[in-house]
Amino acid sequence: MTNKMWGGRFESAPDAIMEEINASIGFDQRLFAQDIKGSLAHAKMLAEQGIISKSDAAEIRRGLEKVQAEIESGAFTFSRGLEDIHMNVEQRLKDLIGPAAGRLHTARSRNDQVATDFRLYIRDVCDHLDGQLHNLQLALATKAETHAATIMPGFTHLQVAQPVTFGHHLLAYVEMLARDRSRIADARKRMNESPLGAAALAGTSFPIDRNMTAKELGFDRPMRNSLDAVADRDFVLELLAASTIAAMHLSRLAEEIVIWCSAQFRFVTLSDKFTTGSSIMPQKRNPDAAELIRAKPGRILGAFSSLLVVMKGLPLTYSKDMQEDKEPTFDAIDNLSLAIAAMTGMIKDLEPNAKAMRASAAQGFATATDLADWLVRALGLPFREAHHVTGSLVALAEKKNCELGSLSLTDMHSVNDKITTDVYKVLSVENSVASRVSLGGTAPKNVAREAARWLKALAKQGN
Amino acid sequence: MTNKMWGGRFESAPDAIMEEINASIGFDQRLFAQDIKGSLAHAKMLAEQGIISKSDAAEIRRGLEKVQAEIESGAFTFSRGLEDIHMNVEQRLKDLIGPAAGRLHTARSRNDQVATDFRLYIRDVCDHLDGQLHNLQLALATKAETHAATIMPGFTHLQVAQPVTFGHHLLAYVEMLARDRSRIADARKRMNESPLGAAALAGTSFPIDRNMTAKELGFDRPMRNSLDAVADRDFVLELLAASTIAAMHLSRLAEEIVIWCSAQFRFVTLSDKFTTGSSIMPQKRNPDAAELIRAKPGRILGAFSSLLVVMKGLPLTYSKDMQEDKEPTFDAIDNLSLAIAAMTGMIKDLEPNAKAMRASAAQGFATATDLADWLVRALGLPFREAHHVTGSLVALAEKKNCELGSLSLTDMHSVNDKITTDVYKVLSVENSVASRVSLGGTAPKNVAREAARWLKALAKQGN
Amino acid sequence: MTNKMWGGRFESAPDAIMEEINASIGFDQRLFAQDIKGSLAHAKMLAEQGIISKSDAAEIRRGLEKVQAEIESGAFTFSRGLEDIHMNVEQRLKDLIGPAAGRLHTARSRNDQVATDFRLYIRDVCDHLDGQLHNLQLALATKAETHAATIMPGFTHLQVAQPVTFGHHLLAYVEMLARDRSRIADARKRMNESPLGAAALAGTSFPIDRNMTAKELGFDRPMRNSLDAVADRDFVLELLAASTIAAMHLSRLAEEIVIWCSAQFRFVTLSDKFTTGSSIMPQKRNPDAAELIRAKPGRILGAFSSLLVVMKGLPLTYSKDMQEDKEPTFDAIDNLSLAIAAMTGMIKDLEPNAKAMRASAAQGFATATDLADWLVRALGLPFREAHHVTGSLVALAEKKNCELGSLSLTDMHSVNDKITTDVYKVLSVENSVASRVSLGGTAPKNVAREAARWLKALAKQGN
Amino acid sequence: MTNKMWGGRFESAPDAIMEEINASIGFDQRLFAQDIKGSLAHAKMLAEQGIISKSDAAEIRRGLEKVQAEIESGAFTFSRGLEDIHMNVEQRLKDLIGPAAGRLHTARSRNDQVATDFRLYIRDVCDHLDGQLHNLQLALATKAETHAATIMPGFTHLQVAQPVTFGHHLLAYVEMLARDRSRIADARKRMNESPLGAAALAGTSFPIDRNMTAKELGFDRPMRNSLDAVADRDFVLELLAASTIAAMHLSRLAEEIVIWCSAQFRFVTLSDKFTTGSSIMPQKRNPDAAELIRAKPGRILGAFSSLLVVMKGLPLTYSKDMQEDKEPTFDAIDNLSLAIAAMTGMIKDLEPNAKAMRASAAQGFATATDLADWLVRALGLPFREAHHVTGSLVALAEKKNCELGSLSLTDMHSVNDKITTDVYKVLSVENSVASRVSLGGTAPKNVAREAARWLKALAKQGN
Repeated sequence: MTNKMWGGRFESAPDAIMEEINASIGFDQRLFAQDIKGSLAHAKMLAEQGIISKSDAAEIRRGLEKVQAEIESGAFTFSRGLEDIHMNVEQRLKDLIGPAAGRLHTARSRNDQVATDFRLYIRDVCDHLDGQLHNLQLALATKAETHAATIMPGFTHLQVAQPVTFGHHLLAYVEMLARDRSRIADARKRMNESPLGAAALAGTSFPIDRNMTAKELGFDRPMRNSLDAVADRDFVLELLAASTIAAMHLSRLAEEIVIWCSAQFRFVTLSDKFTTGSSIMPQKRNPDAAELIRAKPGRILGAFSSLLVVMKGLPLTYSKDMQEDKEPTFDAIDNLSLAIAAMTGMIKDLEPNAKAMRASAAQGFATATDLADWLVRALGLPFREAHHVTGSLVALAEKKNCELGSLSLTDMHSVNDKITTDVYKVLSVENSVASRVSLGGTAPKNVAREAARWLKALAKQGN
Repeated sequence: MTNKMWGGRFESAPDAIMEEINASIGFDQRLFAQDIKGSLAHAKMLAEQGIISKSDAAEIRRGLEKVQAEIESGAFTFSRGLEDIHMNVEQRLKDLIGPAAGRLHTARSRNDQVATDFRLYIRDVCDHLDGQLHNLQLALATKAETHAATIMPGFTHLQVAQPVTFGHHLLAYVEMLARDRSRIADARKRMNESPLGAAALAGTSFPIDRNMTAKELGFDRPMRNSLDAVADRDFVLELLAASTIAAMHLSRLAEEIVIWCSAQFRFVTLSDKFTTGSSIMPQKRNPDAAELIRAKPGRILGAFSSLLVVMKGLPLTYSKDMQEDKEPTFDAIDNLSLAIAAMTGMIKDLEPNAKAMRASAAQGFATATDLADWLVRALGLPFREAHHVTGSLVALAEKKNCELGSLSLTDMHSVNDKITTDVYKVLSVENSVASRVSLGGTAPKNVAREAARWLKALAKQGN
Repeated sequence: MTNKMWGGRFESAPDAIMEEINASIGFDQRLFAQDIKGSLAHAKMLAEQGIISKSDAAEIRRGLEKVQAEIESGAFTFSRGLEDIHMNVEQRLKDLIGPAAGRLHTARSRNDQVATDFRLYIRDVCDHLDGQLHNLQLALATKAETHAATIMPGFTHLQVAQPVTFGHHLLAYVEMLARDRSRIADARKRMNESPLGAAALAGTSFPIDRNMTAKELGFDRPMRNSLDAVADRDFVLELLAASTIAAMHLSRLAEEIVIWCSAQFRFVTLSDKFTTGSSIMPQKRNPDAAELIRAKPGRILGAFSSLLVVMKGLPLTYSKDMQEDKEPTFDAIDNLSLAIAAMTGMIKDLEPNAKAMRASAAQGFATATDLADWLVRALGLPFREAHHVTGSLVALAEKKNCELGSLSLTDMHSVNDKITTDVYKVLSVENSVASRVSLGGTAPKNVAREAARWLKALAKQGN
Repeated sequence: MTNKMWGGRFESAPDAIMEEINASIGFDQRLFAQDIKGSLAHAKMLAEQGIISKSDAAEIRRGLEKVQAEIESGAFTFSRGLEDIHMNVEQRLKDLIGPAAGRLHTARSRNDQVATDFRLYIRDVCDHLDGQLHNLQLALATKAETHAATIMPGFTHLQVAQPVTFGHHLLAYVEMLARDRSRIADARKRMNESPLGAAALAGTSFPIDRNMTAKELGFDRPMRNSLDAVADRDFVLELLAASTIAAMHLSRLAEEIVIWCSAQFRFVTLSDKFTTGSSIMPQKRNPDAAELIRAKPGRILGAFSSLLVVMKGLPLTYSKDMQEDKEPTFDAIDNLSLAIAAMTGMIKDLEPNAKAMRASAAQGFATATDLADWLVRALGLPFREAHHVTGSLVALAEKKNCELGSLSLTDMHSVNDKITTDVYKVLSVENSVASRVSLGGTAPKNVAREAARWLKALAKQGN
């Protein structure tokens, strides 16, 4: 095969290995819609500026629309010999419309073409992920509203610390996801500048109108430096970083679900849809989806690291190393998207076991802080002294193998003789939870209000 | 040693290993100013809300100011037995003011205290890095203005591609750094919410005013969910991600400087300040600073990966794992800051060797694209055909071992007989560069305008 | 300050930033013993080969021993102006013995000196980690022997799958650590070649004896290519990779300990030494050490990634980038070492709660596999059919809210009418465990034998 | 679709998302040969031990061989509903041979089956990579032998340091690759133990013979702990670490090739096969293959990081997270394999430009060290003083804009009046190179001997 793209200079064709390592069509065909969109905008601009004729532009448009239809219908045959999506589309265009196809590449290079295509693609990914995260927030907030008052233990160090509500716990994730969405929105805004028109690297002497193509493609403006336009991939790294952080958030909820599903916790029940059985242990209900979600930050951090290694120390402008930007990115995005979808389904179906949660929340002296706070408020002890008194009372209860609320007043007086029967009010988990009315605290009325606020805000965003 | 902090319940002291793995004072003493700032705000609020007395608050303020002065003067002795900065400060406060110190911890926990301290610290880091990056942009734009018309080869694949100007090349980095600053600014804005008042994890029953402490500490608002407030560290990850990307940008310029300093390129000369000699090869002028900057993305990606691994799959809320958030972060920030400072100094002192750059830009058929474009514009060839003709002319020049501009018209006609003498105008590097007037292109007048625009914008931001 | 090291060529001293980014003495002073050891071997060889005089060699030895004593006693003052450990030692040597010091550097360069020092250091680290891991294996195997028959649930997906013994579980980690040690041993063997004598990069014209210095320093042989000797750091990467994997193993046990310590599991009790309390929740016994160990793979993966990024794409031979090899490595090793020590202490003190474990093992139809196996063995059902029958019986038991062993024979017959009363024997956890006598299986007699085998093997290795 | 695998307990089928996130058949079909090999060994053993009948075993063998043939011929239809390769094979076996298929799973679980399959696969990968690296060593050593005396500059900091030979430079990589192979060989040896027979996690009560299946599958022995056998993936991490390091080595050579191909260096010429042209710049000969190889460490470090994140903190034994071990591993291995193949082809075809290299080696005072060494040897100066004198002479030559060998004796005496005309002998690059005869030094006779030694050793290993 003689390589038709590289002109008359090369005498021998790249051999099989070179074709294999060099060709990107296997993965960059994903960018076909963006590639065609970019070409349509470019051709329109060339015609408006009088660089190509109106009739050529019309031919090009007609041809590109046909190519798009062919790809979408599955009728298109991608060729590895043509290396990448740009050449595959262009060659087909040439077959369809003849010489006019050759004019499309005027004042453009594969360097700014791939930069434009990938930027358009990543921008679409931002929108897609935002929609998905919105749906997950909605699922969480809906469940949170229902369980604004469902008591569960709040943990630190996986030790029962203080009672909270299940709704409050779920809303913590709504907050995290809000920041994830905000990060993606910022990334989208920052990347939304057009590299098109940078040409190979230096700009062009053709009288192109970069503002027009930028507008046509939905970009806020053209990038201001042609070298930068073709040489950087920070917009991909930024999305991958935001994705890694979002995946980390999901992994935490996933870990909790795995733990909650254990026979020892039994805090929640997953639907059959999101559990699997075992080939040898028929009794198992494995939270496979949660486990897979827990694992996903690996893939996504891997992609971020991968691209960072690629870009590190790369001289300007385009180097072929940068072709390695796509596969790990596609893999990362697919996996994050899948993880969000699976988590959304799982949360919708998940049912908390209020009884088991309530029982756990009452164990483990979870109202010890309430006791300490009471000592401060009611008896005026400095906090650190109240803390010390509480510690002694907990030690006593542990020794007697009873809950704090089951210590007699005599027991209490053995540690501090100012304690009154009023203390017993703060030792119930319901009272404890209800008392935490500070902004952002777990009091059910707070949680209900927050859930409602979120549901309203999410509804306003549409879906 | 009996452990005074953990109350009366523990019978034996943690042994040496535990103290070593557990104590954070060795590194978190960096947070002393933020810790004291947070405590001052908390104490003031407690008094305003009537939770502690005005006189206690005054005592606390007086004491904390003394502690701060002691630390700043180096008179303070940090104790590992007291584990962390919070307890070191609190214990000293107790020594200084007695029992009132014990009231400071009312309605607060180490969990929200460390979240507040670290957030304040990272926010300060954002401001610091922004200032440094501003200075580097200034150095680059200043140099770019001087060299708006200094011709150098533009590279792709480290092959001479098209001539550009040195100023244009430097402005590409100004653009990248602008995005880096914008990323840091977004991170700062997103993290600027107050966790203080989340207490251990559930909020508190004390009538605290979180809006007041938030305002006092310069936060835009309180965080809305207490569990989220104490459990997340995404704000650190976000800054580390932005830092990794910024370090990647610096590493590219550093690589270029290393290559440019080689005897084979000789594009630039570094000052003695930023080169070193060799213990055995006296003739060497090693671009050590550039090499170290090139290496830094390693450290910073390392920190991001490190914290991501720590946070992955961690159930809510605080777990001790999260103590691992600080050392890698401090190391990353210090190294990025050092790299920016070194790069700024290096750029200020660096002198381009215009003659060598110009000579390189003229080599290697760098105006082949101009020729192809001329064939399109002047002869109306479709771009792909023009490309093919140009390829044949380059092959011919290569065979004759001459530049494109040295081919005779007869030579040219052997490939395409429509070529006229007009073609020779586009074959000089000066004309090539001057012709690229498209927005963002390398034409010296474009570059001068862009440099001036940047210098004006940077001046407006102050320093 | 004029820079005394770099000879007469540099007119101005590196400024403050350059000194800060360039100097390594802040961290490479750790290598002082290795540096002096290497110099002693080099000087001895130079004298044996007649390159320097015996009296100079004697002076050098005397001087170096004095320097070592000064550093060990803390009397030595390190100077940042002298950049690194090599120059600090050499300068002090010159102060002590005068001009003879200048002859030490004959036929040597900082490039092979630092390669030698760091290799010696990393080799020492291998030995240190091996000893620590041996101790941890010993602690685990000792505990495993005691608990060879202590029943606990074996988990997959954190779901109770089949009963195993606590000893068996601990021995799984002994196996993992054996591979970790084996990896470190392989790394040590591979790195144990001497770079000394490679000089700057090309070898030397002095008649040195590299075999002699290699032997003197305990290396198996000299490295065979001088460029490779000074340019590679794969030996560090290999140790960091092995360390990352070992840290991952520790993190899994740490996660289990955290889960086992929860109030819901209560499988183990940690000693006070390895738990901490809470400043606000006096009842907490937080498994802080386990959590910190769980977090450590982050730091160590961070170091591996960091050095990989540094070395990626670095042309031969030495570049200053390579100075970034030390800090992350030191940090990683220190943290791994600390994690192993803490885990060893924790395991020694840890007490399993046999009752809680036994109860959990009996829950959750953990002997369902035994039932399926019985159906195969006793009734001759194909495994997949046996599996199906078992699934139906589990569903029945779940519906009746009873254990499998509590189903009546009538119940059983409702699913499969060939089942006999013999089935009840395989439904007890004790019988289940005892039956798994296949090689590597959890039968207590297997476990006891394995623990004894390990203890004998570990004893033979000494400590 | 009702899920046929998980028995009668699940009432509703996993929905589409769950199937998508859960199914592994899309990627684990790669393991078909290993899966069938493992099943053949297992069935043979079951029959030998009398656990299944000889005739069932014969049927199973016949069926499995048919399945293998179907897959190899492309006639097999993989079903995502059947989740993974194990169930796809088993179901087809059932179709082919009926109920006997159900007996194959006796005393086995998907947990030990996947552990066995993946281990066999990774072991095959080790052998494959070893063969490829052997070929690359051969290409390098062959080229090195030809160019044992071809002079080129040796670099530190990309500054000309001392002259070396091109053969010596290439042999440095042969050494690195030897360590890479050695690392892979160690990993192979360590992983070569059989998990088969661990069953789900606890071993089995069936009288299986694990030694027999281990031997049948080419394993050195069975793994000794059933929990460890199904729960660890350190063997994959170890191979990925070794692969990352090998990729790093390749990336360094790739970077050198990119730099050497620049117009400024022109040290080597690549064949057309391993360069590509530009769509807009017809004169370009881009070293695309080298650039892609340079980028590959990203992908492979990404895979290592990814799996490390997955395994971090995972409780024993199998969790579904571990299904994430395959895709990044396959991707990493494919990319490393491709990179080695491309590098081998490139090295075979690459031609050094001896003239340009020789000219560069003579520039830049590359024999300054030889001068310093001469001052030590001939005049008896201490090395540090010799260094200082040399520095002054270099400064003088630089001022006079001449090479060291062009300084007159008068010039030399202006710095040190003991210098004799003998000095001029050491100032030629040929003499410099020839003089470095120390073990591992660059003297052409050393290099020729080393290349011959390597070629002999590589030939002995076969191909």
